[in-house]
Amino acid sequence: MTRRRSAGLQSQLVDVSRRCYLRGWALGTSGNSSAVPKGRLGPADILECDDRGEVVGRPANGAAAARKPSAETLLHLEIARLRQTGAVLHTHSVWTTVLSDLHAKEGGIHLEGYEMLKGLAGVTSHQHREWIPIVANDQNMPRLARRVRRALERFPEAHAVLLRRHGLYTWGDTLEDAERHIEILEFLFESIGRQAALEGADRRHGLHKR
Amino acid sequence: MTRRRSAGLQSQLVDVSRRCYLRGWALGTSGNSSAVPKGRLGPADILECDDRGEVVGRPANGAAAARKPSAETLLHLEIARLRQTGAVLHTHSVWTTVLSDLHAKEGGIHLEGYEMLKGLAGVTSHQHREWIPIVANDQNMPRLARRVRRALERFPEAHAVLLRRHGLYTWGDTLEDAERHIEILEFLFESIGRQAALEGADRRHGLHKR
Amino acid sequence: MTRRRSAGLQSQLVDVSRRCYLRGWALGTSGNSSAVPKGRLGPADILECDDRGEVVGRPANGAAAARKPSAETLLHLEIARLRQTGAVLHTHSVWTTVLSDLHAKEGGIHLEGYEMLKGLAGVTSHQHREWIPIVANDQNMPRLARRVRRALERFPEAHAVLLRRHGLYTWGDTLEDAERHIEILEFLFESIGRQAALEGADRRHGLHKR
Amino acid sequence: MTRRRSAGLQSQLVDVSRRCYLRGWALGTSGNSSAVPKGRLGPADILECDDRGEVVGRPANGAAAARKPSAETLLHLEIARLRQTGAVLHTHSVWTTVLSDLHAKEGGIHLEGYEMLKGLAGVTSHQHREWIPIVANDQNMPRLARRVRRALERFPEAHAVLLRRHGLYTWGDTLEDAERHIEILEFLFESIGRQAALEGADRRHGLHKR
Repeated sequence: MTRRRSAGLQSQLVDVSRRCYLRGWALGTSGNSSAVPKGRLGPADILECDDRGEVVGRPANGAAAARKPSAETLLHLEIARLRQTGAVLHTHSVWTTVLSDLHAKEGGIHLEGYEMLKGLAGVTSHQHREWIPIVANDQNMPRLARRVRRALERFPEAHAVLLRRHGLYTWGDTLEDAERHIEILEFLFESIGRQAALEGADRRHGLHKR
Repeated sequence: MTRRRSAGLQSQLVDVSRRCYLRGWALGTSGNSSAVPKGRLGPADILECDDRGEVVGRPANGAAAARKPSAETLLHLEIARLRQTGAVLHTHSVWTTVLSDLHAKEGGIHLEGYEMLKGLAGVTSHQHREWIPIVANDQNMPRLARRVRRALERFPEAHAVLLRRHGLYTWGDTLEDAERHIEILEFLFESIGRQAALEGADRRHGLHKR
Repeated sequence: MTRRRSAGLQSQLVDVSRRCYLRGWALGTSGNSSAVPKGRLGPADILECDDRGEVVGRPANGAAAARKPSAETLLHLEIARLRQTGAVLHTHSVWTTVLSDLHAKEGGIHLEGYEMLKGLAGVTSHQHREWIPIVANDQNMPRLARRVRRALERFPEAHAVLLRRHGLYTWGDTLEDAERHIEILEFLFESIGRQAALEGADRRHGLHKR
Repeated sequence: MTRRRSAGLQSQLVDVSRRCYLRGWALGTSGNSSAVPKGRLGPADILECDDRGEVVGRPANGAAAARKPSAETLLHLEIARLRQTGAVLHTHSVWTTVLSDLHAKEGGIHLEGYEMLKGLAGVTSHQHREWIPIVANDQNMPRLARRVRRALERFPEAHAVLLRRHGLYTWGDTLEDAERHIEILEFLFESIGRQAALEGADRRHGLHKR
């Protein structure tokens, strides 16, 4: 990768991280070992890794020289390899935390009938049936990466995978595609979460007979 | 339309789109086929169409030359023609997604008794009775446009129409009027959504006997 | 009032309005007849009135010359006179809309035991007992103003009054005091709203025996 | 402390306060006696105190000369002494207000199984078991400080303490660490709050048998 292209991507990544932080999808360090809160990332906090997770190139300033890639780098690489994609993004939101736990027993979350689904790559109708698999969380990265790989292989059409009580992994050909997938999936998870709460209240009181 | 007026409208449209994006009413590409997330629209992403949906004038830069109008352009034009309005806006919010599904059986959502209703064009009292029809979503645009037309003809006083699990269409003489309608209707949908959840909880426990 | 002090207040009012707009407490035109959404107010949109509601001084630019004060000016003046305060603010939020309706039968909302109450003028302990009266909404301004006056006279300690399904009126010696009251009351209304929903869910399932 | 380091900290504190204000975690004056809303703090509003709570150094401008430290300074100092930390932060959010009341009987809130826990200092697995003690609120500061001290001594591993219907105290070696703890804990409180509401709705309707 040329120096110039790398710098453009750094700046794009910083912007994506800030937008996710502002929406509350990347608070704290979101479980990574880095000491830098996501909302205050700068170009110097972006590390460029090769396909084995080794840092390549020079960080934008000396202070970053001692930084190590996130422990979850392995997961990003595994997903990029399996899906043959250019960008993998990972967020921690309240709704993915809650719903990945509530739906863990079923092994995934089913999304169907929403116009918003058409924002997922290759989807052309709201009647699309999307299954987002949920895998158990694990601090053993090779084991977690195997679990994610099995989920991706079993559901080759899935646009994302959830780690239980941890967060969302999604991807795309470009960083823009991956960010669009985050926005769409977070929107849909919030929608099904709020609807489940309302349907409970409504059914009890006969406000809606369906 | 003169070049100057057109440029002013482009910039206004970009601002409206950003405000809607920031409130979470236009995440992702919100189902349109454009690759540009709504929060990062620029003037070059605004296409000027004539009343048959054909692009007119030159986009603000060359890069946009290859862009096509949204597949839903037909719907915007149909509404503008039927309501004789200058501006039609379309948003996708969590509350319109959830409530358009919960109220689909009744065919619409009833709003009455809210001071906020007075922000709708021509409404002078909170006692105004507003009925927002809900139509089934469809990827067949001519069929969806017919369905919307029938709803508008049947409810000539309606200030908006909901597409089930898809979003809100509203309009106004000016872009400012249409944006005000979005804000008012989104506010009211959130209010009835939250109240339905609370009334469920309250009635069960005798906190409010009504 | 000197020209300079007036200009300072205009700019403060514009800032307060924008902050309220950003929090969703002043969407649309919030029921007033002005055509300017609250988030895009400028100094020229602020009208200076005397204690009978007549516009005094010259607006900051000619365009505003034709503007009339809000229909609710009478209410602001009545409250300022009765409470002898320098600033009266009015917001429309989702939580005040919902809770002013759910508690209308009791005639008010009771707030007690919250540390946040200490931000209300003159309150020194969380054990303070605040009663916010709710009055029925009305398009007849003199009648609504009388209703508000009776509520203020009956509850001389109240820091605010709610109009049912309409919004909140609160006040303070300075604009800063009034804005602080808005923030505190909106916070407390959201807190009791969310707690009521949770207590419903929790009690049903024996998660909390209280 | 040198003048330069002090100025850097002032500016950091102002930034942290603004971020907390924007998220709704520090509205109003959040119960402190200061007249300055947290979202509009400037460097002149930051007072430097010694370990007995006495103001040291000169405030950044003359206007602040008459300001007194918050009544809760004692609590900050007690926590800093007991935990041997460099930074103590205090916020008032809707979720800590609601949950500190709902869980008051149990004396604390239990957090376990969340990846986000790894953002707490020294925590390396989502299986970490965190207990956040809740103490009764009190306007008698020495008594409240004793109560907080007993909680910290009884739960030496706790990363934070909740004051019932008042808010959160957390800390860290640096201001950045303390702010990260706020973000993580607020995220987790919102998650358990929303999940409790949903589990209620879901269990009632057999959507999830767990």
